[in-house]
Amino acid sequence: MNSFNSRLKSIIKHRNSWLCVGLDINSDNLGSSNISKLQEHTFNIIDATRDLAVAYKPNFAFFERWGSVGFSWLKETVNYIGEEHIKIADAKRGDIGNTAEQYAESIFNHFHFDCVTLSPYMGKDSIEPFSKDPEKGVFILCKTSNPSGLDFQNLKIDDGLSLFEKVALWANDLNHKDNIGLVVGATALQDLSKVRNIAPELPFLIPGIGAQGGDLKQSLILSNKSSVGLINISRSINFAGDMTPKAIRSAAKEYVNRMRDILI
Amino acid sequence: MNSFNSRLKSIIKHRNSWLCVGLDINSDNLGSSNISKLQEHTFNIIDATRDLAVAYKPNFAFFERWGSVGFSWLKETVNYIGEEHIKIADAKRGDIGNTAEQYAESIFNHFHFDCVTLSPYMGKDSIEPFSKDPEKGVFILCKTSNPSGLDFQNLKIDDGLSLFEKVALWANDLNHKDNIGLVVGATALQDLSKVRNIAPELPFLIPGIGAQGGDLKQSLILSNKSSVGLINISRSINFAGDMTPKAIRSAAKEYVNRMRDILI
Repeated sequence: MNSFNSRLKSIIKHRNSWLCVGLDINSDNLGSSNISKLQEHTFNIIDATRDLAVAYKPNFAFFERWGSVGFSWLKETVNYIGEEHIKIADAKRGDIGNTAEQYAESIFNHFHFDCVTLSPYMGKDSIEPFSKDPEKGVFILCKTSNPSGLDFQNLKIDDGLSLFEKVALWANDLNHKDNIGLVVGATALQDLSKVRNIAPELPFLIPGIGAQGGDLKQSLILSNKSSVGLINISRSINFAGDMTPKAIRSAAKEYVNRMRDILI
Repeated sequence: MNSFNSRLKSIIKHRNSWLCVGLDINSDNLGSSNISKLQEHTFNIIDATRDLAVAYKPNFAFFERWGSVGFSWLKETVNYIGEEHIKIADAKRGDIGNTAEQYAESIFNHFHFDCVTLSPYMGKDSIEPFSKDPEKGVFILCKTSNPSGLDFQNLKIDDGLSLFEKVALWANDLNHKDNIGLVVGATALQDLSKVRNIAPELPFLIPGIGAQGGDLKQSLILSNKSSVGLINISRSINFAGDMTPKAIRSAAKEYVNRMRDILI
């Protein structure tokens, strides 16, 4: 049996890539609200990047806004990705135990994702239903890339640590089965570095590169100095250039080449 | 134009009730995984409690575990509830701005809910897309009813306040349009009382009564001393007695009678 974290690390090594392709298929960017068109574009992105991506991360919001039709498209997307990549459910769920059980059922047994993003606010009851199976993983929101992440995450607790550092310590303690990771944005490198020191073995899922302006080089180096850091790129790949498979592949290839130049 | 909070208060007053019926339709409790049966039971609960309930709160997890079929059932449920009750999307979403916009589109424009539960961890970027329209409301997780809510919510910040008190202060500041409320569990009355003092005008959505053992009387009195406190009951109504409409109505009626005895 292969734990989630070890499988993630072995795919990164095998593919010489740290790229997670976020699938945020916004109809406004694509200029069409036709679900078949959105689905076709999703499949084009996947096909154009299969040898470059370690993981695909469908962002649930962009599917849910279409209701049940969007959920069918999401299921087909997970199925289309297949078994050679890590499939990350970017769902950011967080609820009490018996409800979290149902979300875990949805994400792992209905949709067949490999892992999920979760909010820490409700504590470990809201995480454990997702982390029981070592082959299934969890990325816990720790230090997010958005400006108002500062509203709470950087508050100083009375022991001198920031809230995001407490989350990192706590997540580290939950990692009994080698299947816990952290979401740590590329937009605050000092904080990313602190989290890496607190949780040297946990994989990072790193948003904030691309449209949000995070630092690719430093976040890649700092996160991969121990364990691994997976860089998520969404919009800059999904809607690259003229949005043809060629333009999408070219954008993804450029990111992966930059990553290889930095780390290999 | 009627703000969300004023509409909620006027329905409470008109109906002489503080009951929110949580719709957590667990197939294990019902002893059937047949979606038609689950849907029929949902509609029975609604019909049996229309004159007693102020609000219905479908818990998304119990619908999502069935994928697109569950999302169809959710949409039909919202439609079935109609316009005489507050429809609360218990989704506990929380994501960055452009993603939150998509979730808001889903919850308000696709499913036609009146309000939504949200996590505060990512800050105000993750709330504002839901609170732009004064007629649509937001309940922000503040002090939750589950045991591990303590993992972070009661941490002391260096100014002496707990994290949940910071969330309450911050939510109060976001309430420019009279459409922000807070989720505050009935399982920690001292904390509920603190939140009421910090945010005297915000409606509370109160879980933790029933299966979780919270104190109905005190939470109702404390929360309604200013603004309103809406008591959520899920399992004790959904699966009351022999689960017939009569048993469901009887359980709901008993709760509402107890509430009326306490507050009227």
